[in-house]
Amino acid sequence: MFTRMLNAAVFAIAIATLCAGCTTGNPSMAREALPSWKDGPARQAIVQFVQKTTDKSSPQYVPEPERIATFDQDGTTWVEKPEVTQIMYCLERVPALVKQKPELKDVEPFKTVLSGNREAIAKLPMKDLEEILAATLTGMTTDEFQAQVKQWIATAKDPRWHKPYTELTYLPMLEVMNYLRANGYKVYFVTGGGQDFVRVYSEKTYGIAPEQVVGSMGGTQFGYDKDGKPILTKEPRLLLNDDKAGKPEGIHLMIGRRPHAAFGNSTGDKEMLEYTKAGAGARLAMIVLHDDARREYAYGPAQGLPDTKMGAFTQALYDQAQKQGWIVISMKNDWKQIFAFEK
Amino acid sequence: MFTRMLNAAVFAIAIATLCAGCTTGNPSMAREALPSWKDGPARQAIVQFVQKTTDKSSPQYVPEPERIATFDQDGTTWVEKPEVTQIMYCLERVPALVKQKPELKDVEPFKTVLSGNREAIAKLPMKDLEEILAATLTGMTTDEFQAQVKQWIATAKDPRWHKPYTELTYLPMLEVMNYLRANGYKVYFVTGGGQDFVRVYSEKTYGIAPEQVVGSMGGTQFGYDKDGKPILTKEPRLLLNDDKAGKPEGIHLMIGRRPHAAFGNSTGDKEMLEYTKAGAGARLAMIVLHDDARREYAYGPAQGLPDTKMGAFTQALYDQAQKQGWIVISMKNDWKQIFAFEK
Repeated sequence: MFTRMLNAAVFAIAIATLCAGCTTGNPSMAREALPSWKDGPARQAIVQFVQKTTDKSSPQYVPEPERIATFDQDGTTWVEKPEVTQIMYCLERVPALVKQKPELKDVEPFKTVLSGNREAIAKLPMKDLEEILAATLTGMTTDEFQAQVKQWIATAKDPRWHKPYTELTYLPMLEVMNYLRANGYKVYFVTGGGQDFVRVYSEKTYGIAPEQVVGSMGGTQFGYDKDGKPILTKEPRLLLNDDKAGKPEGIHLMIGRRPHAAFGNSTGDKEMLEYTKAGAGARLAMIVLHDDARREYAYGPAQGLPDTKMGAFTQALYDQAQKQGWIVISMKNDWKQIFAFEK
Repeated sequence: MFTRMLNAAVFAIAIATLCAGCTTGNPSMAREALPSWKDGPARQAIVQFVQKTTDKSSPQYVPEPERIATFDQDGTTWVEKPEVTQIMYCLERVPALVKQKPELKDVEPFKTVLSGNREAIAKLPMKDLEEILAATLTGMTTDEFQAQVKQWIATAKDPRWHKPYTELTYLPMLEVMNYLRANGYKVYFVTGGGQDFVRVYSEKTYGIAPEQVVGSMGGTQFGYDKDGKPILTKEPRLLLNDDKAGKPEGIHLMIGRRPHAAFGNSTGDKEMLEYTKAGAGARLAMIVLHDDARREYAYGPAQGLPDTKMGAFTQALYDQAQKQGWIVISMKNDWKQIFAFEK
């Protein structure tokens, strides 16, 4: 059942881009609020959407409680290559796991992961990956899991920039989140990543509170520890795979309102964007195209690359975006700067 | 699987008790904010809790994002006798259902419900009740369901006071919700009632937004209608029974933070109160005792009544409250007024 948790994902230490003076949809405010965006159609679409939904005299005005914006995480608000961060976590957690359970040392797939042989690890079949996910994401209490992820995220480095994963957030997207919040929007994650995983760093990294993280959800079991203290234990029981059709299902479950704005980057976000656009009034659907191999990565139809296992920006998705009025964000052409750490 | 959805429940048109001047934990403010409370230990516990958690100089100060308060609904914030409101809804929905599906007319248990024979209806076994719940709560789109409940709640009347169910809310509890909100608390429902059901009226009746309703959760299925428009269809698949151990599990799933204050009235709230009190710092656990047969109902250990099928205030729960420092709220002794419609 964990198969579907693979389109998972996940995190960042926020560079908290303060949104000085962006309390209205006023264009000059927007210029201050979205400094990393070039003045193209993508940036204009965001500003116009905020203007028409927050101006009380606009026919498309949206009352504040209805202002819901949802963001996919991996590939939409931070780097998802060469592997989504939560998978990196699970693999790097294996040594600590084997320390607790030495009997796993010579058992596959843990043996291969311990070998450090990257090629062999990359070739592990899905079934083995699931086993690693279940072993590293469940079985402990929610408090223990939180402590484990917190420690890892504070110290782990990505293989390309050798920076904490939490620094691989896209500065322009952090600016959009802040701009929306400053205009009365509640900003949610709607991610295939594990809800408990993302919640550990989402507030610090993105300003998104735990209760505003919609992710893939596993069951917990209430019980008592040996001292009689109430605990919740994470179970290998998937309640909802928050990917593809699971995204609008997760939005309904966790929020109970249809978003007015949604941001994604792959086929995993298709249903969320459709569901968002199907609502009445002003609705904004945006989709990030990874077309900047120099500053980040290039994958997607413009690059003629094949689909990957993880949700990808396919040609069909590109065509649907054109047809249904979703705005494509070109990382290369729309963003002056991608990361806060760039000069 | 619907068995467990029975500890269900639910609703009310809010009497929106505006909280004039209750922006701090200041006792004089509290006097204005909690006018329906007699000045006893229950009222004092609420005021003291708010004071010590919102005063920055207090060692028990709680930062605003951590200020979470959870309320059970049936029997805690509105009347649950002679039957919880959601069950009334399901029974009264049967004629409309049979109109859509005439083949059910002579089939049990629908036939008995249609007969209007109250004694026979009250005697329906759990299995039959489940069948009625599944037939009236699932199978339609989320939008259709919302419209059905909205229409019913606007017109249905309770059998004792002959008022809309939404007027059977407890004024003192609405005051507590407003007092907490005015002091930076986020107020959630954590109810055994169906999440989608409660969300229809919770904002108008209690000021609780849909995204702050944690209830029993059913799965939905994303799809498209005949015009290709995205829809979500309610499925008879229980994701979480938000009762007893399901309450802390639901809190973790939907909020991801431990409450600082929790309010309940029955064995169904025991685990939520335990989980709340087990957190560090100031934690408030309160439990409503129905001991006022004249103004409302009397059931529970003080009345020597037996346990009911629906969660009840048992002697064991009363003893646990004394032992673990939960504050018992006596409807008779702590509340000057119960309903807004009383003189």
